[in-house]
Amino acid sequence: MALPYFYVTDLSSSTLTLEEDTSKHIIQVLRMQLNEQLLLTDGKGKKATAVIIDDNRKRCTVKLTDVIHEPEKATGVTIGISLVKNASRFEWFLEKATEIGVTEIIPLLCDRTEKEKFRHDRLQSILVSAMLQSQQCWLPVLHEPINFGEVVKQTTTANKFIAHCLPNEKQQLASTLAHHSPLTTQAAIILIGPEGDFTEKEIATALQLGFQPVALGNTRLRTETAGMVAATLLCQLTSE
Amino acid sequence: MALPYFYVTDLSSSTLTLEEDTSKHIIQVLRMQLNEQLLLTDGKGKKATAVIIDDNRKRCTVKLTDVIHEPEKATGVTIGISLVKNASRFEWFLEKATEIGVTEIIPLLCDRTEKEKFRHDRLQSILVSAMLQSQQCWLPVLHEPINFGEVVKQTTTANKFIAHCLPNEKQQLASTLAHHSPLTTQAAIILIGPEGDFTEKEIATALQLGFQPVALGNTRLRTETAGMVAATLLCQLTSE
Repeated sequence: MALPYFYVTDLSSSTLTLEEDTSKHIIQVLRMQLNEQLLLTDGKGKKATAVIIDDNRKRCTVKLTDVIHEPEKATGVTIGISLVKNASRFEWFLEKATEIGVTEIIPLLCDRTEKEKFRHDRLQSILVSAMLQSQQCWLPVLHEPINFGEVVKQTTTANKFIAHCLPNEKQQLASTLAHHSPLTTQAAIILIGPEGDFTEKEIATALQLGFQPVALGNTRLRTETAGMVAATLLCQLTSE
Repeated sequence: MALPYFYVTDLSSSTLTLEEDTSKHIIQVLRMQLNEQLLLTDGKGKKATAVIIDDNRKRCTVKLTDVIHEPEKATGVTIGISLVKNASRFEWFLEKATEIGVTEIIPLLCDRTEKEKFRHDRLQSILVSAMLQSQQCWLPVLHEPINFGEVVKQTTTANKFIAHCLPNEKQQLASTLAHHSPLTTQAAIILIGPEGDFTEKEIATALQLGFQPVALGNTRLRTETAGMVAATLLCQLTSE
């Protein structure tokens, strides 16, 4: 049975007083007691074993007994994905992308994006739960929504892809990755469009700026499914 | 704009009277009229263009004008996956697996499966919606739940995989597929365990019967996420 695993924003001091919610969870819900062990991460690669030295249910205090640091992946995966009308589908994508191990998520505002209010705090907490659930110690970076145009202009990532549904010439992302092993040592970004796809103008702009057009299989995928499929292929085929 | 797309159980006759629900949707919701065109599929590879010849809102009748038949994939993908406690997570898996293009889904009853009632009709309708949504004309076969032991004994598929979390020796499914091109011409099945994983006994039985142990990346995935990741890798890396 793995030790209970919690998120804290800072792991730099050797003794920590945890926030009220976390303290309540540990002392009241899990009924943990003095000298019991738990795990903590700062979501920036640090994973610490700690022991409870004050079981106050509002200000539980722990002492770190062991800290390991997991280096950041060289093959970071960034998913730029349009917001979708149905907020729960976007939240679902965030959970799955985190479980799968993406490093960065950029919500895109495209010509055809039907904007939804963006609740960063709520979405951030979904990322944290998914990171802990999947026993990772790197929290994906979740950006505020950015306009498509700015993202394609500013991206300097080594491997740049854009997934679209127009019948134009494009490769399957899966075969591109399976047959180009150099990719496995470099970071990658892929852009996923809204319901109704990117506009021809958006696609043309991305191609001019060096994005490679790719397909994600032969079926028509929902935005959040496409994001998940892209995250799977990039995380699994660039992390060998 | 694609034509509206509907599911019918039988496309063998050239004139069809559609069921009441479908008729209502076409005539009342979409307000379609005499002589307008729509698409139909039987979920068994047939896709027909049809024209409305009777706009009765309870018994809309159409005449097929063109029928194409898409052959079944040689590289069929079967996912055997444990039922999970949270029904909506299993339903979510069914939607995504269908969008991605799996051919067969076997709900598994494993030693650690926390059984939930299995509502075949409701789940079937999720498959149908996802098939139409993703513009496919093959409906995945959804089995009734089967005991793990029976499935591993009865499977005759060419490529048999079992994904588990024990630290035993196993390959990454992604690299196995990326580097074994013969696979791309054969069907495959993968087994995904319940929360808490397969038991050692279950894994041993599967290995004895020729299942290859595989990992689905380096993070700990929820059951439904593991199913989706496996579906993505198998559908995308065996369908080239």
